[in-house]
Amino acid sequence: MDTRNLIGYNYSLRIGKTFKALDPSSGKELEGDFYAASLLEADEALLLADKAFAGYRYTDSHKRAAFLRSAADEITALGDELIERAMAETGLPAARLQGERARTTGQLYMFAALLEEGSWVEAIIDTAIPDRKPLPRVDLRKMMVPIGPVVVFGASNFPLAYSVAGGDTAAALASGCPVVVKAHPAHPGTSALVAAAIKKAAETHNMPDGVFSILYDDGYTIGEALVKHPKTKIVTFTGSLKGGMALVKMAAERDEPIPVFAEMGSINPIVLLPQALENRAEELAKIYGSITTNAGQFCTKPGLLLAVKSDGLDKFKKALGEGIATVNSATMLTPGIRKNFAKLSGERQAEEAVTVIAKSDKLNNENINQGLAVVTEISASDFLADEKYGEEVFGPYSMLVVADDIAQLEQVIGTLQGQLTASVMAEKEELPKYRSITDKLANLAGRVILNGPPTGVEVGNAINHGGPFPATSDSRFTSVGTSSIKRFVRPVCWQNWSEELLPDELKTDNPLKIWRLFNNEWTK
Amino acid sequence: MDTRNLIGYNYSLRIGKTFKALDPSSGKELEGDFYAASLLEADEALLLADKAFAGYRYTDSHKRAAFLRSAADEITALGDELIERAMAETGLPAARLQGERARTTGQLYMFAALLEEGSWVEAIIDTAIPDRKPLPRVDLRKMMVPIGPVVVFGASNFPLAYSVAGGDTAAALASGCPVVVKAHPAHPGTSALVAAAIKKAAETHNMPDGVFSILYDDGYTIGEALVKHPKTKIVTFTGSLKGGMALVKMAAERDEPIPVFAEMGSINPIVLLPQALENRAEELAKIYGSITTNAGQFCTKPGLLLAVKSDGLDKFKKALGEGIATVNSATMLTPGIRKNFAKLSGERQAEEAVTVIAKSDKLNNENINQGLAVVTEISASDFLADEKYGEEVFGPYSMLVVADDIAQLEQVIGTLQGQLTASVMAEKEELPKYRSITDKLANLAGRVILNGPPTGVEVGNAINHGGPFPATSDSRFTSVGTSSIKRFVRPVCWQNWSEELLPDELKTDNPLKIWRLFNNEWTK
Repeated sequence: MDTRNLIGYNYSLRIGKTFKALDPSSGKELEGDFYAASLLEADEALLLADKAFAGYRYTDSHKRAAFLRSAADEITALGDELIERAMAETGLPAARLQGERARTTGQLYMFAALLEEGSWVEAIIDTAIPDRKPLPRVDLRKMMVPIGPVVVFGASNFPLAYSVAGGDTAAALASGCPVVVKAHPAHPGTSALVAAAIKKAAETHNMPDGVFSILYDDGYTIGEALVKHPKTKIVTFTGSLKGGMALVKMAAERDEPIPVFAEMGSINPIVLLPQALENRAEELAKIYGSITTNAGQFCTKPGLLLAVKSDGLDKFKKALGEGIATVNSATMLTPGIRKNFAKLSGERQAEEAVTVIAKSDKLNNENINQGLAVVTEISASDFLADEKYGEEVFGPYSMLVVADDIAQLEQVIGTLQGQLTASVMAEKEELPKYRSITDKLANLAGRVILNGPPTGVEVGNAINHGGPFPATSDSRFTSVGTSSIKRFVRPVCWQNWSEELLPDELKTDNPLKIWRLFNNEWTK
Repeated sequence: MDTRNLIGYNYSLRIGKTFKALDPSSGKELEGDFYAASLLEADEALLLADKAFAGYRYTDSHKRAAFLRSAADEITALGDELIERAMAETGLPAARLQGERARTTGQLYMFAALLEEGSWVEAIIDTAIPDRKPLPRVDLRKMMVPIGPVVVFGASNFPLAYSVAGGDTAAALASGCPVVVKAHPAHPGTSALVAAAIKKAAETHNMPDGVFSILYDDGYTIGEALVKHPKTKIVTFTGSLKGGMALVKMAAERDEPIPVFAEMGSINPIVLLPQALENRAEELAKIYGSITTNAGQFCTKPGLLLAVKSDGLDKFKKALGEGIATVNSATMLTPGIRKNFAKLSGERQAEEAVTVIAKSDKLNNENINQGLAVVTEISASDFLADEKYGEEVFGPYSMLVVADDIAQLEQVIGTLQGQLTASVMAEKEELPKYRSITDKLANLAGRVILNGPPTGVEVGNAINHGGPFPATSDSRFTSVGTSSIKRFVRPVCWQNWSEELLPDELKTDNPLKIWRLFNNEWTK
């Protein structure tokens, strides 16, 4: 494992301050001295990325696909070393990390397939109509092209799938944009291993030097320098509202403001409708798994349960409490996350308006930084009296809001901020009656779920992982799935252009056989 | 003509400060006292827009289409009164305004057709795979939905096509977003007439009250209040870099930052390649028309001509100068625009490094606020020495940059900022040799044109009117054509949803018969 900053194909020789990774379950330092990048290295990485962009944007899409596939294969080839290091750095269990690795390589394969299929460029062609009156129509052909160097901030809670070779990097590289990753300081070793895999794949496929770089820093200096660098054209981030908004503001204050796609989490409300509660309270209570899996450290963890008081709800509460009580404590990702969880969930529990439905006491005393599951309850009127209850508590915590009636429940929904997800647990026959609720949820969230947990985000064409502010900084884009490539591309229109010089995607005879809107008809 | 602020279906009864429109060709005030809106009215308009959104977003798309068509018809029905008022307020000639009216109604019809066709919602469906290993795939269905109230700033230079019922309003209303227009103070009467036409159409089709409002102000207070209002979800603007950036910054500083699509103009370089200059210098010189039409007051006016010195270029210069000398002065849109034009073009001409190729002396003494065409010349090395030469001079002005060789010409291109358009005048046979130049232009601009003027923006599917900063604030979107609707929509994914409650666009049997990506295949 090379612990130095990687700038294109070369590990930087600059030596300065170093830092070590921490095993959150023991508090012990892990091996490896990671070099905190200097401002010079941030500059080098972006200048090289910009240089690489000139060539990389024109690489054949099949070559780019082969590069992405190789990156996936190289990540798989890291074998247990990667899983073990990630376990040590994050406290996440092996099975979860193996699953996450499969998701990571799956995303790379998915984008490779997208490139090979080719229709993602959204080619639209309006051919000339020389005899149109009063004016002739010129020949116009439009497609998406990559925008430029992307800075990707690795996420703490997805050390593989939303970190160095995660969804953001895969989509940006697929689009033709070079990537400079700011590694998350909580898992620098995992990051270094994955970075080496990408480097190897890029070299194998002769990608331009600078198509990928990675920099380390256990502070904020380098992240800030990357966002402010004039060659940076887009920034992606997954993390807290505070962190995301800091980047959004920074990017907006540049001489050239640039887009930041920040996925900042949410509380993912779940509405439990009366009939469902009456018919299958115990089954619905299984949602405790979604609240507590991996210490609840998901941006789609359901942090809010909404229901009208009823006998069914009492049964649900009992079963939910019993479920929560069975959950073992789990190591949280970092001492900071654990501390923040303890603080926020503690504050909630201490409020007079809040009662504790259940709290697990199954503390693992062998490890530290443990998160213990807890579910609380509040009346709708108390919830409505203080907006803090609508804010995220990251970790194995959820709050049940009990309304007097459906009108009050709707009132609570009306106060919620933008969400990544919103769910409804319902019997199909009662749903039409609550149209106004489901409409409100769809207006609030990026994904609306019926009778299922919000966690477990499918990766594909139809997924949307995004949502109105503050869930993300721009609800018009998703950060998961094939459509996430749209964050990194812009349209260019060729007018009256020479056929031979048009990109293949826009040539009249469609040599790539991609789907195109050709004179207002979709054809292939 | 009702000169009061229109809030939904009601003209506001609040009375305060008024202002009058000015005829720029005479400097005289035109009839009509327009009421500068109060902060209360700005608040009322957005609260009502937000209320209207709850219903408008679910209106049947055929009803919305009928509303847009009616709006177009009502605008046409205004007849000569509209054209005459617009002429008086803008100094633009009748033929231009008639053409612009046709473009305006054409845009409304275009979006109506888009709604009826229906595929614009980008429906993507991945059906469930219950037996997928290791985990089942859930049913996921995604489509675009409107985001919320849009604030549209009317543009000074398109009093019809990018003003009250212009492309931004048409696209936003088509998407399902209510619109609050901040009328441009240079043409309040034109705005009032068009607003009444939209009101009538909305009433005819029983659209929710508040789907459209218009506010007047001859200062900045109301514009600022509209951008900062918590119910505003998107802002569009066409105008100067300074004005656009002020809105962008304002929107970024909100508690909830919102997207601003600002189209801020550019200098639209035209590269004249050697063979074309040698073969048809006189023909190329006809570009003077694109520089001077309507006093050069287009965001796509070519403000920069680039060539390598040659005999052909000398011939071009001669012909260009002769053309410019024939151009009559024209009334500019406002005294402020005229003043700014005189200042900037005067400063350029006064520079030692700059020579005047030609300047029209055909001044119309009967009118004031006249813009006289001028074309200047500078050496590439002098151009490279001062970045101000890369900045827009709004009006009938262009500058020829003469390079010693192709390498220096490429160097000049390398310094240019983001552009709406970039053009090449070339013989087809010489083009392959200059691939590096055409690639650079495509990387710089939103639209690249071969052998044609950048002015005269076609409206349709394949157009892109956008470009890298500072041409626009977000190069990922176009402000002209069907794709411009994408600025106002966001994806929502329905997971495991009940078939009966899904939007029609996402129902399995495709009742609307729209194009959809269904299990990775485009079908209808």
